[in-house]
Amino acid sequence: MGINIVAQAESLKEKTIARRRDFHKHAEAAWTEFRTAATIADILTDLGYEVFVGSEVIDEQAMMGVPSTAELKRHEERALAQGANPQWVEKMQGGKTGVVGVLKCAKPGPTIGLRFDIDANDAVEADDEGHRPARDGFASVNRGAMHACGHDGHAAIGLAVAEVLVSLKNELSGTVKLVFQPAEEGVRGARAMVVKGIVDDVDYLLGLHLGFNTKKSGQLAARIEGFLATTKLDAVFTGVAAHAGAAPEAGRNALLAAAAAALNLHAIARHSQGPSRINVGQLDAGTGRNVVPANAVIKLETRGTTSAINEYMCSEAKRIIKAAADMYGVQVEIREMGGAAGAENDLCFVEQIEIVAGKLGIFEEILPSCYFGASEDCTYFMERVQQHGGKAAYIMLGAELMAGHHDFRFDFDEEVLTKAVALVSAVAADLLQA
Amino acid sequence: MGINIVAQAESLKEKTIARRRDFHKHAEAAWTEFRTAATIADILTDLGYEVFVGSEVIDEQAMMGVPSTAELKRHEERALAQGANPQWVEKMQGGKTGVVGVLKCAKPGPTIGLRFDIDANDAVEADDEGHRPARDGFASVNRGAMHACGHDGHAAIGLAVAEVLVSLKNELSGTVKLVFQPAEEGVRGARAMVVKGIVDDVDYLLGLHLGFNTKKSGQLAARIEGFLATTKLDAVFTGVAAHAGAAPEAGRNALLAAAAAALNLHAIARHSQGPSRINVGQLDAGTGRNVVPANAVIKLETRGTTSAINEYMCSEAKRIIKAAADMYGVQVEIREMGGAAGAENDLCFVEQIEIVAGKLGIFEEILPSCYFGASEDCTYFMERVQQHGGKAAYIMLGAELMAGHHDFRFDFDEEVLTKAVALVSAVAADLLQA
Amino acid sequence: MGINIVAQAESLKEKTIARRRDFHKHAEAAWTEFRTAATIADILTDLGYEVFVGSEVIDEQAMMGVPSTAELKRHEERALAQGANPQWVEKMQGGKTGVVGVLKCAKPGPTIGLRFDIDANDAVEADDEGHRPARDGFASVNRGAMHACGHDGHAAIGLAVAEVLVSLKNELSGTVKLVFQPAEEGVRGARAMVVKGIVDDVDYLLGLHLGFNTKKSGQLAARIEGFLATTKLDAVFTGVAAHAGAAPEAGRNALLAAAAAALNLHAIARHSQGPSRINVGQLDAGTGRNVVPANAVIKLETRGTTSAINEYMCSEAKRIIKAAADMYGVQVEIREMGGAAGAENDLCFVEQIEIVAGKLGIFEEILPSCYFGASEDCTYFMERVQQHGGKAAYIMLGAELMAGHHDFRFDFDEEVLTKAVALVSAVAADLLQA
Amino acid sequence: MGINIVAQAESLKEKTIARRRDFHKHAEAAWTEFRTAATIADILTDLGYEVFVGSEVIDEQAMMGVPSTAELKRHEERALAQGANPQWVEKMQGGKTGVVGVLKCAKPGPTIGLRFDIDANDAVEADDEGHRPARDGFASVNRGAMHACGHDGHAAIGLAVAEVLVSLKNELSGTVKLVFQPAEEGVRGARAMVVKGIVDDVDYLLGLHLGFNTKKSGQLAARIEGFLATTKLDAVFTGVAAHAGAAPEAGRNALLAAAAAALNLHAIARHSQGPSRINVGQLDAGTGRNVVPANAVIKLETRGTTSAINEYMCSEAKRIIKAAADMYGVQVEIREMGGAAGAENDLCFVEQIEIVAGKLGIFEEILPSCYFGASEDCTYFMERVQQHGGKAAYIMLGAELMAGHHDFRFDFDEEVLTKAVALVSAVAADLLQA
Repeated sequence: MGINIVAQAESLKEKTIARRRDFHKHAEAAWTEFRTAATIADILTDLGYEVFVGSEVIDEQAMMGVPSTAELKRHEERALAQGANPQWVEKMQGGKTGVVGVLKCAKPGPTIGLRFDIDANDAVEADDEGHRPARDGFASVNRGAMHACGHDGHAAIGLAVAEVLVSLKNELSGTVKLVFQPAEEGVRGARAMVVKGIVDDVDYLLGLHLGFNTKKSGQLAARIEGFLATTKLDAVFTGVAAHAGAAPEAGRNALLAAAAAALNLHAIARHSQGPSRINVGQLDAGTGRNVVPANAVIKLETRGTTSAINEYMCSEAKRIIKAAADMYGVQVEIREMGGAAGAENDLCFVEQIEIVAGKLGIFEEILPSCYFGASEDCTYFMERVQQHGGKAAYIMLGAELMAGHHDFRFDFDEEVLTKAVALVSAVAADLLQA
Repeated sequence: MGINIVAQAESLKEKTIARRRDFHKHAEAAWTEFRTAATIADILTDLGYEVFVGSEVIDEQAMMGVPSTAELKRHEERALAQGANPQWVEKMQGGKTGVVGVLKCAKPGPTIGLRFDIDANDAVEADDEGHRPARDGFASVNRGAMHACGHDGHAAIGLAVAEVLVSLKNELSGTVKLVFQPAEEGVRGARAMVVKGIVDDVDYLLGLHLGFNTKKSGQLAARIEGFLATTKLDAVFTGVAAHAGAAPEAGRNALLAAAAAALNLHAIARHSQGPSRINVGQLDAGTGRNVVPANAVIKLETRGTTSAINEYMCSEAKRIIKAAADMYGVQVEIREMGGAAGAENDLCFVEQIEIVAGKLGIFEEILPSCYFGASEDCTYFMERVQQHGGKAAYIMLGAELMAGHHDFRFDFDEEVLTKAVALVSAVAADLLQA
Repeated sequence: MGINIVAQAESLKEKTIARRRDFHKHAEAAWTEFRTAATIADILTDLGYEVFVGSEVIDEQAMMGVPSTAELKRHEERALAQGANPQWVEKMQGGKTGVVGVLKCAKPGPTIGLRFDIDANDAVEADDEGHRPARDGFASVNRGAMHACGHDGHAAIGLAVAEVLVSLKNELSGTVKLVFQPAEEGVRGARAMVVKGIVDDVDYLLGLHLGFNTKKSGQLAARIEGFLATTKLDAVFTGVAAHAGAAPEAGRNALLAAAAAALNLHAIARHSQGPSRINVGQLDAGTGRNVVPANAVIKLETRGTTSAINEYMCSEAKRIIKAAADMYGVQVEIREMGGAAGAENDLCFVEQIEIVAGKLGIFEEILPSCYFGASEDCTYFMERVQQHGGKAAYIMLGAELMAGHHDFRFDFDEEVLTKAVALVSAVAADLLQA
Repeated sequence: MGINIVAQAESLKEKTIARRRDFHKHAEAAWTEFRTAATIADILTDLGYEVFVGSEVIDEQAMMGVPSTAELKRHEERALAQGANPQWVEKMQGGKTGVVGVLKCAKPGPTIGLRFDIDANDAVEADDEGHRPARDGFASVNRGAMHACGHDGHAAIGLAVAEVLVSLKNELSGTVKLVFQPAEEGVRGARAMVVKGIVDDVDYLLGLHLGFNTKKSGQLAARIEGFLATTKLDAVFTGVAAHAGAAPEAGRNALLAAAAAALNLHAIARHSQGPSRINVGQLDAGTGRNVVPANAVIKLETRGTTSAINEYMCSEAKRIIKAAADMYGVQVEIREMGGAAGAENDLCFVEQIEIVAGKLGIFEEILPSCYFGASEDCTYFMERVQQHGGKAAYIMLGAELMAGHHDFRFDFDEEVLTKAVALVSAVAADLLQA
């Protein structure tokens, strides 16, 4: 079957590249992927998948870092103007731009989840001739949004995999769940899909990234370490203004509350079980030199090598922020703006992937280990699946890059797309081989 | 009547001096005045006063800065050994060493309260020949307790006044309430008597001090300003110890809670309506260099030129202390260790006192104004009486001092005693002159 | 002479109102008063005054809160376009928009300084018919600058006084120094003129304000109390950015330095000799949630009822800010953005002014006292003159207001202008009456 | 030679146990080991070693955490009374209780250093029959000092090794340096010997501990990891007292300086290259509630998994402490009270030790790895030797314990002594086998 799959992936190459470029051209940042998601939903429907979108796959309460209603509205209209199917956009109101496609195979068997993130970055894309997307006419037309992390490729891979698996449907046992996740940037989107329960029945969960720490085409890394659990918080303090000369006692000082919070947050005790991090990256407070400041906001993040360590940091942080507000008699609202879990790939799953990859014969190098050293909210899916007894893995596929991730000149060697389609399809087929 | 009273005061001179010296010799610090109070109670009873002590005049909950039970017990036994009447001591258990003597005059009339504080200081008295109490054999026999503030004189004055007023009883209209208050040092005792309600029916309240800011014999100051309201607080933080190297995250850091409290206490906003003060005078925390500190205590005081300003400081302080504990996840107990109100003498009462004093002809100088600039818990009595529509005044009587108040060589010219007996008796008589 | 002066002031009424309205229409905020100052210089020259501007009267190093070079340039060009004499503007480059006019009288005698501030506020003026300047066509044409504090009136008064005194020149003994000061708003300008030494030879210094705490036409207040000395500081912290997850130890945290500064600034000990104030009104730091913040700025002010108390606050503040920077290993630059001294009117001078005012017969009410309760940098002139043995006074002249000072609908009853011209001229004449 | 050495060690067993018990009975804490060191010096002299003590082996400036002169004097006298040789004690004045014995073998060769620590803990030893030292009459007679860490055993082992090596002297090539180090508790003593240069010529340095993380007799651990570099600091702040009510601005607040230091110390940024620690374990400040506190002391420690990380923590800490003092205008003195380096055993030396141990046949278990997880100032010797190109190792020898290290009931199975003598002697002989 392996050779067959490689050939099929090859035959989808042009279509996959065209889709990637279409997504690239119509780049949409977190929670505004109306056109991208609607396109995916259309294609999956055409392929025969049962398709779920909007509040069917997203828990509204669990969404993090969502733009304002006005901005979301603006993007809905933009997406419609760019050809998005109004039926899907209607269901995705409020930024609920996730899509899940379900394919039941011929015979009963395990459920596998394949996760693809689809959002663009907040960046203004290069527009000179030296930048291929500009030269070849697929640079972002949505100024301020740009696919500088390869999620356009991830989305295109997912759609090709969808097509391959449909063709194998009668030979396989079990269920395929394709998870197209919005808002991975800022680690804001996965939690809302996990909380909704969409991977609660998943036995194997596979996520991927192209070109990250694997910058040579033909590389595969399945032995990934170093996922950092993280939480992104904003704290908004509201006090009472007063004339600093005439009645200082009448004020409630939000600036000092924020300052006290910042200092004491950085004093959270180190954790003996592994590295932890805290950073208050921004503090803005006050309006005038002679007014007791009534407003302040801090933007911070906690990290830990495990979910437990990050949870320790985050719960300490929240308590400290609340106490700092109490200390100055001001109100505070803490907003979760993003988050990711720690994670470990299941070794047996990793080995299975490597065996499948070996048989495909399309990878030149399978890395013995690979350090991630960053945060990725695919970990929320992995954690949930593992908590329910399932297996999970996150893999990285080599691709030469024209500039680093998140750079305004980012672009990648599209060869990786075909390899990824073949591998993911083959792994899925292997898992569903009764 | 005035001349008569002066003569009577003169006739009591020797007895008054003897009593002052007896109290001086058996100096008893705050809440341990068992012998002093029992002596007073005996004398008042003999004079025909209705006498109330212990829980009849002290609200136990409202006592501040009370020594340990063991120490109180030790002092009870000491007092008994020094001749205190066991019947009174029995009723004063727990340090409730206040005494109130009530004398109903022949006819109905107003109720006047005369307040005398009776406690000694925590000090070791000089024992050389240059110090008169030592030379003349009345230096304190209770090492560590010493009358270095003249309260021995106040108590003796009160007893002589009691005797003068009894002699005038049939000519007067109304009720005399003599209030002998323990624990003025550290401003710890007045509140417990006020809360008990003993001045709730008082129409005129008079308090006094000898030699304070009036260091010349023959001076009288009734126009006193600058009583500072104050609150004395201890905050005891209790966290969780942990090995600072092996498991810092397992600790709950009481030292940092106390440090955060101290810094933010000093940042309480200034009050526009008058001077305020805050001082964390002591901070002690931790047991070892390599242990996350599980214990901390801070000792602080707030002040304000009015009760309202002090109340602002004190309530801010309490909120900050609690928030600092929350910030570090530790427990905190806040203990009120002392307090005094702000106060203002009633001008009409002041003028009446000055007229009476003028008629007596025993004062060489009546000061046009006098700044107190400190705290005195007689203010609690004054505040309560004024809240109920009564009048209050606090006066100062000149006396040459051998050393400053609270000095271990403190002593005063005993001439002041007779003048004080005459004045207080005459003011009382004037008020009760129907 | 008094009656004469009143008549002369009356005769200048129309011209004075016209000038006030011209200044109002071409409102210029601190350090950009190129047209206002050039106009003043022209008029004084025409009147026969020796005129000094630019670096002749302003010490560049002592200027505080100066706009950027680009902004100053823009205003120079705007002023020229609005008819400012290029010769003066050339000399005022860099915002040195002060003017001093000197008139030597017939005979030798004392030197008197009369100080008038000339700058507008940063405000957008009301443009509806209900606002007289808009209705009558003299609302500010310089959007964002508006005379909302009456300095347009002060400047016009000064020019009329100049004219009156010229007419009296032959009868008088001594020297008149008319000081037209820029940048009083934000208390930024006076220091630069004082440091330059322009009042070092002044024997009597008179400053004034219209409508401030004297809101009834016909009022005069010369017994002013409650000038608050103040210093306005910006502190700019510069650290080193670093990735908060990957290398936190490589950063130098400017945000924490600023936060530590803010907290400890508010903990500066209260001063026993009078009210003091501290306010960190703004704190802005950092660029991104996951970056160790390399930049921070705080904007603060200190105050005190005397120059000494403010100096205490300010020197404490500077030390604390520097130490906070050291604490986090970051650099800090402290900029003085404004300042005013404390001040007391000389009583003998005040009495003289009141006598002169009485003789003029144009004031309906001379207030027995008046509390200022704010900061005014005329105090720097007063302090310097008094330090050299001279006398100084600051007076307030009643005027009905249409809205409060600094309100975008501010306007005043122009009747005050004539009264002010008469009084100031008469006081000057009285002082120069050998 | 191995078998020979085991037999020799066996023959010294009784003597070695007797010496251990003598040291135990006359326990002497850090820098007061006058009797212990004098005894060692006597024995080494008798064996023919060249013996160096006092300032010959200790750099006075580099001594940390030294008792007061008075206390040292008291201990000198106590030691003399307990039989210490006055000649040695004389040379050890000031607490310089280190001893180095040098033995030059027959032929030239490498220099080996064997390090034994000799000080007792600050503890009051159990005195009941259940505690063998008490039962058998060798419990500490020096109340407050107790060998609760086995250094009595280390010293006895060193003396037996000295004897074995003398007997082999003619067969060996090179030089033996026996280093008897005072003040290992609190990691206070090693630095002073290293700074003096006593191991600058050492090619192999061997240190050991009995019973630590190897609690079964017959165990040997040579593959030790996890030495924590550490620095122990005291910071003493000195400000100016002032009456907190009357003149708060006159004070210089040492309490707030210490509090600010404590908070900001705990906010030192985490290090990305490995675990770090900071702990302010004690803070004591102030004398009275109503006095601006003029004194404060903090006791802290930093740690790191490498010397570099600890150095980062320590230099940050010192800068913060100084800045906190500056912030409050107080003086501060920072005292280094102890310290240890990070360290790694040289693998080739470890393998050699394991081979030697294997040949001896007296160890039942050679542990494949062992985590230290604490601080030991033998690391200073190791670091210096390795910096000079030498090899170093620290080993642990199993011993059953009656209670944990530093427990007041600590005691160990003395079987370990003979095994240790045999191993150390055999390793030394192996190294000196030309």
